Amino acid sequence: MKEITQISSFKEGASIQGFFLCVEKHLRHTRNGDLYLDLVLRDNTGTVHAKIWDKVDELNDKFSSGVPIAVKGNVESFQERHQLVITKINKASVQYYGRYGYDPALVVPASSNDPKIMWKDIVDIIKNIKNPFLKKLVSSIYKEHKEKILIHPASVVMHHNYRSGFLEHVLSMSKIANQLSGLYDVDRDLVLTGVLLHDIGKLDEISEDMDAEYTDSGNFIGHIVLGRDMVQTAARKIKKFPKELLQKLEHIILSHQGRFEWQSPKQPAFPEAMLVHMIDNMDAKMNLMKLAVEEDQNERKWTDKKNIFRTPLYKGPDESK
Amino acid sequence: MKEITQISSFKEGASIQGFFLCVEKHLRHTRNGDLYLDLVLRDNTGTVHAKIWDKVDELNDKFSSGVPIAVKGNVESFQERHQLVITKINKASVQYYGRYGYDPALVVPASSNDPKIMWKDIVDIIKNIKNPFLKKLVSSIYKEHKEKILIHPASVVMHHNYRSGFLEHVLSMSKIANQLSGLYDVDRDLVLTGVLLHDIGKLDEISEDMDAEYTDSGNFIGHIVLGRDMVQTAARKIKKFPKELLQKLEHIILSHQGRFEWQSPKQPAFPEAMLVHMIDNMDAKMNLMKLAVEEDQNERKWTDKKNIFRTPLYKGPDESK
Amino acid sequence: MKEITQISSFKEGASIQGFFLCVEKHLRHTRNGDLYLDLVLRDNTGTVHAKIWDKVDELNDKFSSGVPIAVKGNVESFQERHQLVITKINKASVQYYGRYGYDPALVVPASSNDPKIMWKDIVDIIKNIKNPFLKKLVSSIYKEHKEKILIHPASVVMHHNYRSGFLEHVLSMSKIANQLSGLYDVDRDLVLTGVLLHDIGKLDEISEDMDAEYTDSGNFIGHIVLGRDMVQTAARKIKKFPKELLQKLEHIILSHQGRFEWQSPKQPAFPEAMLVHMIDNMDAKMNLMKLAVEEDQNERKWTDKKNIFRTPLYKGPDESK
Amino acid sequence: MKEITQISSFKEGASIQGFFLCVEKHLRHTRNGDLYLDLVLRDNTGTVHAKIWDKVDELNDKFSSGVPIAVKGNVESFQERHQLVITKINKASVQYYGRYGYDPALVVPASSNDPKIMWKDIVDIIKNIKNPFLKKLVSSIYKEHKEKILIHPASVVMHHNYRSGFLEHVLSMSKIANQLSGLYDVDRDLVLTGVLLHDIGKLDEISEDMDAEYTDSGNFIGHIVLGRDMVQTAARKIKKFPKELLQKLEHIILSHQGRFEWQSPKQPAFPEAMLVHMIDNMDAKMNLMKLAVEEDQNERKWTDKKNIFRTPLYKGPDESK
Amino acid sequence: MKEITQISSFKEGASIQGFFLCVEKHLRHTRNGDLYLDLVLRDNTGTVHAKIWDKVDELNDKFSSGVPIAVKGNVESFQERHQLVITKINKASVQYYGRYGYDPALVVPASSNDPKIMWKDIVDIIKNIKNPFLKKLVSSIYKEHKEKILIHPASVVMHHNYRSGFLEHVLSMSKIANQLSGLYDVDRDLVLTGVLLHDIGKLDEISEDMDAEYTDSGNFIGHIVLGRDMVQTAARKIKKFPKELLQKLEHIILSHQGRFEWQSPKQPAFPEAMLVHMIDNMDAKMNLMKLAVEEDQNERKWTDKKNIFRTPLYKGPDESK
Amino acid sequence: MKEITQISSFKEGASIQGFFLCVEKHLRHTRNGDLYLDLVLRDNTGTVHAKIWDKVDELNDKFSSGVPIAVKGNVESFQERHQLVITKINKASVQYYGRYGYDPALVVPASSNDPKIMWKDIVDIIKNIKNPFLKKLVSSIYKEHKEKILIHPASVVMHHNYRSGFLEHVLSMSKIANQLSGLYDVDRDLVLTGVLLHDIGKLDEISEDMDAEYTDSGNFIGHIVLGRDMVQTAARKIKKFPKELLQKLEHIILSHQGRFEWQSPKQPAFPEAMLVHMIDNMDAKMNLMKLAVEEDQNERKWTDKKNIFRTPLYKGPDESK
Repeated sequence: MKEITQISSFKEGASIQGFFLCVEKHLRHTRNGDLYLDLVLRDNTGTVHAKIWDKVDELNDKFSSGVPIAVKGNVESFQERHQLVITKINKASVQYYGRYGYDPALVVPASSNDPKIMWKDIVDIIKNIKNPFLKKLVSSIYKEHKEKILIHPASVVMHHNYRSGFLEHVLSMSKIANQLSGLYDVDRDLVLTGVLLHDIGKLDEISEDMDAEYTDSGNFIGHIVLGRDMVQTAARKIKKFPKELLQKLEHIILSHQGRFEWQSPKQPAFPEAMLVHMIDNMDAKMNLMKLAVEEDQNERKWTDKKNIFRTPLYKGPDESK
Repeated sequence: MKEITQISSFKEGASIQGFFLCVEKHLRHTRNGDLYLDLVLRDNTGTVHAKIWDKVDELNDKFSSGVPIAVKGNVESFQERHQLVITKINKASVQYYGRYGYDPALVVPASSNDPKIMWKDIVDIIKNIKNPFLKKLVSSIYKEHKEKILIHPASVVMHHNYRSGFLEHVLSMSKIANQLSGLYDVDRDLVLTGVLLHDIGKLDEISEDMDAEYTDSGNFIGHIVLGRDMVQTAARKIKKFPKELLQKLEHIILSHQGRFEWQSPKQPAFPEAMLVHMIDNMDAKMNLMKLAVEEDQNERKWTDKKNIFRTPLYKGPDESK
Repeated sequence: MKEITQISSFKEGASIQGFFLCVEKHLRHTRNGDLYLDLVLRDNTGTVHAKIWDKVDELNDKFSSGVPIAVKGNVESFQERHQLVITKINKASVQYYGRYGYDPALVVPASSNDPKIMWKDIVDIIKNIKNPFLKKLVSSIYKEHKEKILIHPASVVMHHNYRSGFLEHVLSMSKIANQLSGLYDVDRDLVLTGVLLHDIGKLDEISEDMDAEYTDSGNFIGHIVLGRDMVQTAARKIKKFPKELLQKLEHIILSHQGRFEWQSPKQPAFPEAMLVHMIDNMDAKMNLMKLAVEEDQNERKWTDKKNIFRTPLYKGPDESK
Repeated sequence: MKEITQISSFKEGASIQGFFLCVEKHLRHTRNGDLYLDLVLRDNTGTVHAKIWDKVDELNDKFSSGVPIAVKGNVESFQERHQLVITKINKASVQYYGRYGYDPALVVPASSNDPKIMWKDIVDIIKNIKNPFLKKLVSSIYKEHKEKILIHPASVVMHHNYRSGFLEHVLSMSKIANQLSGLYDVDRDLVLTGVLLHDIGKLDEISEDMDAEYTDSGNFIGHIVLGRDMVQTAARKIKKFPKELLQKLEHIILSHQGRFEWQSPKQPAFPEAMLVHMIDNMDAKMNLMKLAVEEDQNERKWTDKKNIFRTPLYKGPDESK
Repeated sequence: MKEITQISSFKEGASIQGFFLCVEKHLRHTRNGDLYLDLVLRDNTGTVHAKIWDKVDELNDKFSSGVPIAVKGNVESFQERHQLVITKINKASVQYYGRYGYDPALVVPASSNDPKIMWKDIVDIIKNIKNPFLKKLVSSIYKEHKEKILIHPASVVMHHNYRSGFLEHVLSMSKIANQLSGLYDVDRDLVLTGVLLHDIGKLDEISEDMDAEYTDSGNFIGHIVLGRDMVQTAARKIKKFPKELLQKLEHIILSHQGRFEWQSPKQPAFPEAMLVHMIDNMDAKMNLMKLAVEEDQNERKWTDKKNIFRTPLYKGPDESK
Repeated sequence: MKEITQISSFKEGASIQGFFLCVEKHLRHTRNGDLYLDLVLRDNTGTVHAKIWDKVDELNDKFSSGVPIAVKGNVESFQERHQLVITKINKASVQYYGRYGYDPALVVPASSNDPKIMWKDIVDIIKNIKNPFLKKLVSSIYKEHKEKILIHPASVVMHHNYRSGFLEHVLSMSKIANQLSGLYDVDRDLVLTGVLLHDIGKLDEISEDMDAEYTDSGNFIGHIVLGRDMVQTAARKIKKFPKELLQKLEHIILSHQGRFEWQSPKQPAFPEAMLVHMIDNMDAKMNLMKLAVEEDQNERKWTDKKNIFRTPLYKGPDESK
């Protein structure tokens, strides 16, 4: 089986095969009036322009914009940039191309942690919740949505906005919560449950597709209220779930963004709610800073000010060598 | 039956009987060491200080701060203000004192409109909703909560913060909605339903007591989300309630305050939602301006700046005469 | 007489004639060094690129950027977009081209309502003002500026920013004012007059040209103060115009934007001023939402967030089919 | 003629006469049921409580709250504070009490500069304006309002809020303008005229009474627009006043507060307007800092944070000795 | 030795001795003209009014407002509140009254943790810093200021504003930092050093007196810049302290408040700075919420909105029983 | 010696020589596969595209992007714009090309005032400081950094952001300070010293290169704190420098931006600090307005709103002719 080549490894003149996400697709005419396909492809290592000059009609039907594709072609150079001239193309799916090495994580940005290991860690954390009502509640919700949780991003354009970002964010927060609950006079089980469920509405708010975007429910209702719905529904199925405990958990979800202008309809009103908000904010900011530094293109020691923090960030002395 | 005298009609030397809300109650010692009760009473015409000099122990047990009372006494003058010296006192209730003319609307600020007439107007408006799903939804919710709706305030300290204020506000908005729906290209039934239900969560958020305050549900969850719950629950009982129609109605409730910093987790996303928000804002502002002018104590043509609008309001030329 | 073809009806290969606004005009050289004219044309159905290859010197003198033109030419295709190759061109004017079907409303965005009918409606509303001073004041101002009022936009880049937008906005507000004045305890005549005159300064603030922009007076003084000038001047010509009535009307104009940061030097200080501000805000927002949905280019059910409301707007289920 | 004693010079047991502003007046009963008058008096050195025990009916008619009074009485001590027991009292006026030393500046805070000298300085500055239109404009306005200008405050509660504060502020700004106009490339005459007229509307906005407050015009229209009216009216009387020069002057007045949220309907759009705004801001801030330090009551080296700058201000080492 | 009685244990009729902070002291006259001293005393259990009727001249000299005092007296009741009538009074000092049980922590609010144990924990944390430059730097600064650090508050009116609050805050942050540094990709030693030194300037900014207030340096320069000075001075004494390491540490101190409007002249520019800011914010907010709940006086389940979070806080179900 | 031609004087067909800053440099291939250099050049009169077609390898080594160059070439025209085809190119330096007329001020925007004359003016102003400590302090700092001060810009992208802008800004402020110090009750020497040193940290914050950008110290620490360091270091070398005087000077530097959100960790706390802030703000705003008008490209009388003031600025009637 021929090797898979990712975009960052393209070399002029090479003949390659690989898997990519087709992010733009235009049918155009050459100066001579011939049809050709003008494409932009992306994988998790970069972006490249591509052309299909031959069998345009036939190949045009095989894929559309927004889907992962399996491709063969030759790397050429145009205006000092690489350009892939495609000879074979097909829609890629795990069912068919899995055996050739296709994995969605190749074509969209993904967490650098293995989702299966993260899931195991989460399961261990849930096991350690002592309050039987809360443990049952979290277990049932996580079990029901396991498939989605394994791959969902934590946001469309903000922090942890990549495959399995939801899981990475919740796991990181859980570890922090575990350690901090001993330092403050709080109900550890409630904090952990709050952490595990605070963003659960994102599973409904953001679509599962390759190109994450807001669902109708996301736009009409929003993940904060959707998440509380899921908790309420699950709690109703548990006998004698204590009323105040449920209200506190609902409040944690409704207030976890901490400020009205960040779309939280409530502000944290007791220590466990404050702690969940603070841990969420901390983990998001640490992730956003990491992403901002990674995304900066210039070669200097400092990023420019056009990042989410509106301040130059230090990329460290290594960059400048 | 002796006549009831309200505070604004007190005259020095008069012997009166009436109904009041006891808003402050202190057991104090005179300079001679004798116990007496020092009270502040309120009805919907004003506020007066009162004293109980005799039978203090006995009368002290008959009432507490925060309850409506039936009183006999004499109006005296102390430091240029009226003071009521009480000779008889009892807790007031509609059951017992109703026949003597007691009505809660005497002791707490109340809408100047008759709640029963307003209710009838609302019922007519509901009848005119043509969409059968929406009509059924509103009817069932209003029927279920009729008793509360008749007396509830629309807020604790903001606009329409008096007995039957909820009803007055919703009715005023309904009339506006009825007329504006023809002027814009909107679904009139959806606007009317949105108006009738936008604040329905207030029934759960604010306590029914004389002294309105936030309930636990109000503080933990808030009327916006509570109101959506009531709508969702009622819609589930109606067969084949169209999914998108319900989502739009939920969105109207979630976005009706219009701005995140006003605790709306969503901003209006379609014309009907925008219109409900705009009508709500307009009716609240018109009411707040009326209240601010009424509450201003000084005798000039203009209020001072210490009102909710932070600007002097014009009280008109009549005041200055 | 050959038919007029609008941009949205262009078809490749067709030979057309029509009226357009020339919004860009550049004299360029071909690779061979020959001069040609590179144009961008617009009408109220769309935008198209155009070229003049022949008789460049002669045709170059016949028009300039920013004017409406009468054109003959052939529709070709360049890089998958239509391009008009012009063979005849002339400045368009109602005097000369009116009989061939030229109407400015063809080339600039215009209200979908007929200005003459709207004018008639406004005249009826003015007739119904009962206060003789206010009726006389509004009549005289509207009569004096009738010609401008028929075509003026309500703003340069915000709401109702198209031909006859001023009239459409004022008429819509008048209808609302008419209906709401009965619901609140306000002076209906003053509210109506405030509505009819609140933006009257825009006639001086914005130029009458095809391409609306701010005049010197607009930039130096602004429509709020200019509008008050017009009212003051007109009132001086009416004998015994009541002083306070005039001051209140002036205040309505000065405060109609409602907030200092929206350039109002005063905030509404009495119910009529508040109502004019609220109606203005409502009508502007409803119009802006309509425009934002119309302007959105993508094919999804929701607009993106890059509109004036900074929130995705729902375009409805029809779009997605 | 007996000497006048000001409040700061009161000594227990002294028998004094003097002029004061009566800022509070209450008719009360003693424990024995006798009537007495309970007063608060103020002059520009301080505040004192006063009582009238005798001839209450007769003296009660001689004055009211808010007017300056001529008083004889004895200084006593009550609860460690001085208290004036009044024996004779009359309304004070310059006509009658002037020869006994009465001067309004004794009873209300006043500029520490002599208004007549300040007026002379202003006249000199006006003489030095070279542009004949501007000179004529300023002269005519200042001449017409000379009497008011001599005593008007510059604001009700902000900077220069004392007798002749308007004159002090404008003179200080004129001196600065005179010197800065040479340093920047600006039209010195326009800057000076802008400075002299920027606040001229205050003469209409604030009442002339002892207790400065907003007039109806002030509340309805505001000094910014009122000032522009005065300039426009005066300019109309000057033949061939250049149109653009007038527009620029009007713009300076409309934009002199510099920011929309400070109620300026325009922001400075050319260097002269920016300079007038900057000089105004500087002179106001310097005055406000002086007043904040003077008003601070504590004995430490630093004021507390409850001043207009929301920061502790340094009062200097001398205070702490 | 007679027992010490704290204010919360006062009982009417009891004869007590104890240590208090004199927070107000006024010399007044009785109706009969006799002098007496009117005092307000405070200890860490409450506040009480006190009087000295006898030997006023003599006892007046023994103490002043703001100092701790040793007192004997009798508890009486006046207007339903306790009042202490003092018979003996002296300034309290550890030197003289220590053997009688005086401890400053009795009279001012103090951390509930023992400062000596907290100090030992901090020393252990410093020992675990591996980078020799950072360890040396922190050690030298903490050693030099040990005495102050043991008792300093962390702020004048905000979080941890009590005796040893500085130590409590830094220790709590250090524990968090210790645990979080393993979870993120950061230099643990730099985070710990940042935590230990971020507020070190507070030792200079706030006075050591019982009644904490800002020093001249605090007001002129501020703790952020003062703290950086201390770090710079200490680093200069350590040979070959790496330049960039020092710059990063300085940046952590300058940016630790995170936002310009919170007086940080820099915003966090690398992960360690962000983490120190986030931990500081979290620990401050958790402490402020605890204080807000403790300070709330009403007996309901919820505090009112007049706390630093501007939202009602939940005090829990126990309160309401 | 052949004449130097600046970009604004280029004419098609001319053969020129001159000095420019190379701001972009790309090695590209022609359609035929030949290498060429594609450059963008700038001098203080404009910007031009340039090409090197011949001897590409050899000339490519002679210069890099960001350096000043000495060039010979021919002006051609491409797509209606000038394009310089270069035949000879070398790095430019004052040492070698000074005799041919090279001056860095030719290639980067520079103050229109001669830095040497400005320096002399500053020296005169320093001489006039009477307080010996302050005079010595300023002299020593200015002497030490003379070379930098002569050429430094006052900012990277804001006001006075050009060669010798620092000097121009400080000199302008000094003249204002000199004149205003007499009008207010302030310590003139302290104001002048504050003005001369308020921005001194910019010498460390911004790099000296042609293309000004932030240094590491600038990004980590910032000019406000860096400037205070320079003052502290210099003051330590002066015997008996009065402590409070130094603290006040430090405070002036720390507070000179006036607002926390403008990165000042302190707000002005005494009149001299307020005056330095106000003068700084005024001089910056006057300069920014001048730059905004100069930079505006359109041919109308008014700039658009996309300038730092977010308002159209008046460019004057001359432009429109």
